[in-house]
Amino acid sequence: MSEREPDKDPTTPAEESASQETYAFMDKVVAEVSDALAAEESQRVKQIIEPLHYSDVADLVERLAPEDRDALLEIIKRDFDPEILHELDEELRDEIVKKLGLKNVAAAVSEMDSDDAVSVFEELADNERKQLLAAIPAADRAVIRDALTYPEDSAGRLMQRELVEVPPNWTVGETIDFMRRTADDEFQDLPEVFYDIFIVSGEGKPLGAIPLSRLLRSRRQMPVTEIMETEMQLIPATMDQEEVAFLFRQRDLVSAPVVDEAGRLVGAITVDDVVDVIQEENEEDFLGLGGVAGSDLHAPPVETAWRRSHWLFVTLVNNVIAAAVISRFEATIEQMVALAVLMPMVAAMGGNAGTQVVTVVVRGLATKELSPSNIWRVAAKEIGVGVLNGAGFALLAGTLAAFWFENAALGAVLGGAMVFNMVWAGLAGTLIPMALVRFRIDPAIAAGPFLTTTTDVLGFFCFLGLATRFLLGG
Amino acid sequence: MSEREPDKDPTTPAEESASQETYAFMDKVVAEVSDALAAEESQRVKQIIEPLHYSDVADLVERLAPEDRDALLEIIKRDFDPEILHELDEELRDEIVKKLGLKNVAAAVSEMDSDDAVSVFEELADNERKQLLAAIPAADRAVIRDALTYPEDSAGRLMQRELVEVPPNWTVGETIDFMRRTADDEFQDLPEVFYDIFIVSGEGKPLGAIPLSRLLRSRRQMPVTEIMETEMQLIPATMDQEEVAFLFRQRDLVSAPVVDEAGRLVGAITVDDVVDVIQEENEEDFLGLGGVAGSDLHAPPVETAWRRSHWLFVTLVNNVIAAAVISRFEATIEQMVALAVLMPMVAAMGGNAGTQVVTVVVRGLATKELSPSNIWRVAAKEIGVGVLNGAGFALLAGTLAAFWFENAALGAVLGGAMVFNMVWAGLAGTLIPMALVRFRIDPAIAAGPFLTTTTDVLGFFCFLGLATRFLLGG
Repeated sequence: MSEREPDKDPTTPAEESASQETYAFMDKVVAEVSDALAAEESQRVKQIIEPLHYSDVADLVERLAPEDRDALLEIIKRDFDPEILHELDEELRDEIVKKLGLKNVAAAVSEMDSDDAVSVFEELADNERKQLLAAIPAADRAVIRDALTYPEDSAGRLMQRELVEVPPNWTVGETIDFMRRTADDEFQDLPEVFYDIFIVSGEGKPLGAIPLSRLLRSRRQMPVTEIMETEMQLIPATMDQEEVAFLFRQRDLVSAPVVDEAGRLVGAITVDDVVDVIQEENEEDFLGLGGVAGSDLHAPPVETAWRRSHWLFVTLVNNVIAAAVISRFEATIEQMVALAVLMPMVAAMGGNAGTQVVTVVVRGLATKELSPSNIWRVAAKEIGVGVLNGAGFALLAGTLAAFWFENAALGAVLGGAMVFNMVWAGLAGTLIPMALVRFRIDPAIAAGPFLTTTTDVLGFFCFLGLATRFLLGG
Repeated sequence: MSEREPDKDPTTPAEESASQETYAFMDKVVAEVSDALAAEESQRVKQIIEPLHYSDVADLVERLAPEDRDALLEIIKRDFDPEILHELDEELRDEIVKKLGLKNVAAAVSEMDSDDAVSVFEELADNERKQLLAAIPAADRAVIRDALTYPEDSAGRLMQRELVEVPPNWTVGETIDFMRRTADDEFQDLPEVFYDIFIVSGEGKPLGAIPLSRLLRSRRQMPVTEIMETEMQLIPATMDQEEVAFLFRQRDLVSAPVVDEAGRLVGAITVDDVVDVIQEENEEDFLGLGGVAGSDLHAPPVETAWRRSHWLFVTLVNNVIAAAVISRFEATIEQMVALAVLMPMVAAMGGNAGTQVVTVVVRGLATKELSPSNIWRVAAKEIGVGVLNGAGFALLAGTLAAFWFENAALGAVLGGAMVFNMVWAGLAGTLIPMALVRFRIDPAIAAGPFLTTTTDVLGFFCFLGLATRFLLGG
């Protein structure tokens, strides 16, 4: 088993086998540490922390109450495992970097792999970034500075700079000897873990790659060019990480060379780096669909309230528009108050049917199963689904309303408006996300509010309009 | 660069650098293939397909209109790249397996890696599974049968069975020689690509693992036990894949040994297998939040309508309950029709604020940042957020209503109901997902409908109740 750092988890495999138990284990740790902190027994805290995996320590920090968190940091800040920083929620990382103090963070960052260290720097404000850069060794500083010249969330920030590169005239034996020699040189320049070696031309361009498992299976005399893979997926250093993640998933890549504008090899991205990106991008989409701009679990209430208020403001505006539509029919509602009882149903059915469509379409766009070439076929299908479910639920709701208010015409009007709104939901649910993508707006966040505004407005207008026309003889 | 299959994509790296261009490229392929199929030029179709990566062919199959899809399958079924099957949307895979015919699928499956082949079998109905099993070579059949004995979505289904295992008394040199020897034997038994070798005891228990990069850096005389990693994260073969994915993310694993109940090494899982699981699990949560039980982009309209109707039925029931609440206040609405205009606003603001909370909490539960140990702290925070945003939006909406209907008391009632509903949303949004988890119900799907029922009912009840009490002097 390989991982970035030896695993020091003290639990036995059996203890960790089930989700519920992982939970229970962390709950126990949190409780024990809280107790020890309350009793101010810093030695006991150290004993509990010592055998933990760095990701568990990060979890612990996230779960503790703010005052306990500060006390814990005081205890562990002197030999702070740098990997903990990398594992922390971004929201908290900034706060904890400040609390640890420049000297401790600088020491931690110097020990990290270049790509992990970069991720810590990314989170800092300009001023703090400068101070921290000045506090780390010059060689590290140059690497970090270089990485930070690439755009945020780009392949250049994600890649590992340490590579094993060999010239095309070498053999398998020479390559292995080279690695052994460099390894003896205090591992100088060799990455801690790697999966491929790269064959590079005189100008620094990648000619091919050899997976280590193939290198190990080959005879020493074999020229590297004979066994190298030449069909490589080159990743430009400026490519967005979302696109990198997509390529890795789509092409089942395990590692890929990163090249600069001149086509020279500057680094490599491996699939374990991409796992975090995939998780991050998925998380963004998930939160966006629920109207949250980013994970705010660890943010203070005032900040959370402010960030969430944006989407709520959009909701309010939508509802003011819907209210304006309803108010046009005040006279109708006054005459038949049953309409007020039933109208939220029309809006809600359209809104939820539309949300289902938006969800599937946004997903399809993210996985690139959907594009302009097949959007109309999907729209046609979704209209069909709208007709089917619209008809079904119109019948159900219409019948219910007809019996409830002893008014068959009212039931028919409710059913008619529902069919109309649910068919509209199929069409709008498909086209709105597609249009947003064209305007470079993230459909995961914006499509829902847009859609429900239309289904609210149309739902109320249609139901109350039909009622005015057919029930009151207006 | 290593990947499961050589990449045959004909586009240059520059052409593929941007998302929009990947799009454009596939759109072009789809258009060309459709044209060629329409003209019945199967030779041209073959020429377009030939240089494509298997994942692009899968995309193509997904994007074509159903009749074109059938025509394309007729053309390529004779030498069908097995990896295409693995890449296809599950929805379509079943259909395409049927259309390809038993003989062609059997030929394709026999060529696949064991874990990929298993995933094809998983999708089949019992009867088809038996037929296909009978049609493949006996050795493959035994492997597949064995894999299928593990529970669905378990580590045993995910793992690769082909491993490099060596005894603890070997040296690095012996290990490399062994691999070279086995490789000459037509790659017999050696996995195509691997990242670790495992040191295994006489009873078959894993003692340690060596990442290939470390093996390559070590001198030939070095005993394997000297350089092996002993702190391994053992994965029980019955562990759920979601838990496996969590461990890989949490512990930054690249590969991990899988053991049976007796602790014997039976396989290994590598991070590239886990990428698909992470994507799948995220997709499920995303779709669930939007009220869709699974990706239905490629399902026929009738089936889609039926599957989506479940959630819509819940929506209808919610709204019937809400309607029953509203109907209790018919007399009030008759006297003051402005209430009908404003009441959807109270429900919507509470519903959307609650959806934000549910989204963050469901995410926190999935990443295990949230557990019973800190749920009350989060609930307290969310109530605080509800108070803040409730007060802010109550002021805004209340003032607006007061001016609109020239009735300050109406504004105050609207504001009061809104504060109440948004504070409730904070509490219920935290506790409902937590309670659902306890009853082993997936909160991503169920928490939203539960929550909005409460915010609808409370919103209408509170607003109309306050209005009856304070505005009409009831």
